[in-house]
Amino acid sequence: MSESTKKAVVLVSGGLDSATVLAIARAEGYEVYALSFDYGQRHRVELEAARRLAADLGAARHRTLTLDLSQFGGSALTDESIDVPDRPGEGIPVTYVPARNMVFLSLSLAWAEVLDAHDIFIGVNAVDYSGYPDCRPEFIDAFEKTANLATKAGVEGRGFHIHAPLIDLSKAEIIRAGIRLGVDYGKTLSCYSPDPQGRACGVCDSCRLRAAGFRDAGVPDPTPYR
Amino acid sequence: MSESTKKAVVLVSGGLDSATVLAIARAEGYEVYALSFDYGQRHRVELEAARRLAADLGAARHRTLTLDLSQFGGSALTDESIDVPDRPGEGIPVTYVPARNMVFLSLSLAWAEVLDAHDIFIGVNAVDYSGYPDCRPEFIDAFEKTANLATKAGVEGRGFHIHAPLIDLSKAEIIRAGIRLGVDYGKTLSCYSPDPQGRACGVCDSCRLRAAGFRDAGVPDPTPYR
Repeated sequence: MSESTKKAVVLVSGGLDSATVLAIARAEGYEVYALSFDYGQRHRVELEAARRLAADLGAARHRTLTLDLSQFGGSALTDESIDVPDRPGEGIPVTYVPARNMVFLSLSLAWAEVLDAHDIFIGVNAVDYSGYPDCRPEFIDAFEKTANLATKAGVEGRGFHIHAPLIDLSKAEIIRAGIRLGVDYGKTLSCYSPDPQGRACGVCDSCRLRAAGFRDAGVPDPTPYR
Repeated sequence: MSESTKKAVVLVSGGLDSATVLAIARAEGYEVYALSFDYGQRHRVELEAARRLAADLGAARHRTLTLDLSQFGGSALTDESIDVPDRPGEGIPVTYVPARNMVFLSLSLAWAEVLDAHDIFIGVNAVDYSGYPDCRPEFIDAFEKTANLATKAGVEGRGFHIHAPLIDLSKAEIIRAGIRLGVDYGKTLSCYSPDPQGRACGVCDSCRLRAAGFRDAGVPDPTPYR
């Protein structure tokens, strides 16, 4: 590896947004360390998509960290007793996983510090974002400040930058950007309750936002639905 | 449980500091949810101490979350190829675990939100603190702000308070406070490289700070040494 290679940790869920972010980080010249979480999510089959995408999009390494958030429960995504809604609701939805992006970013920070990487990419999006508080720019900014106080690298002046390149984009804009960069969205999985073969339900919040994105972008939807 | 019971999540490592914090939280009237991490630390035997202390000091529940930070390495505490130093060094020591308190606090936040607890206690200490950046008050303050932006509870105005009651205390003051509250320090384990029976090495940073604390407090040191 040449000394000028910039390393970045990229959070990769297997979904449309994080696949696009991975492609953006690669296009910006980063050597990408992709990080996924096996956190007890009911849509665990997304981890297969994450592995495929990391390989296809040229990640230098892909790691899946096991972390059983279902021990805590409290979300339709990690607690089998709470159903994933099949229609839009009011306020922050039950698919919200408490403090998820805080936990995921903290762990990406830990890996970044060990790798001597100073850039972390996350696919949060404040436009079509389902109302999750941890997808807003004010959270990302506060996290970056905290990360630079929490770490040896931060204290020593080799701090961290959290990149959220999708934050102001609509789903349609994200899709157009990804297609320009060669992302094959047929290989991504965004659904909160896919079948065991990884086919999407078509009715959860995530499926609805995604399908609308393809429509708005004027691009055929390559999602395998059940 | 009465409606007026205040719940708190307390990070409990099994060491002297977190045992004292647990006793403080109980004395302040909190119903305590103790959280420990099996994170690949070489001093894993501390988890036995954590379990005993949570029971002895009246925690309502104790949970040990598995999280393999040794996958990342980069610290003498999680990487067997890096020795724990047996004498004081310069700067931030190799026992620093990248972003550890950021990760631990984020996970305590996740559990707190599910429990509808709004208080989180951590035993960081900025006086006899080994030089870890994530034990400083500026980190704790920044974390609290970020937590209140990251979460549904924070956004809805039922935010979180991070308590670091030891932050300005010397080790001797911590020990005196704990003894007043009935902590049996013979049951705590602070050592970074204990033997399999949980007996302390007496030479690592953590043992040295602890032994000096008992000396300065004028209290007999109950630590079982090898």
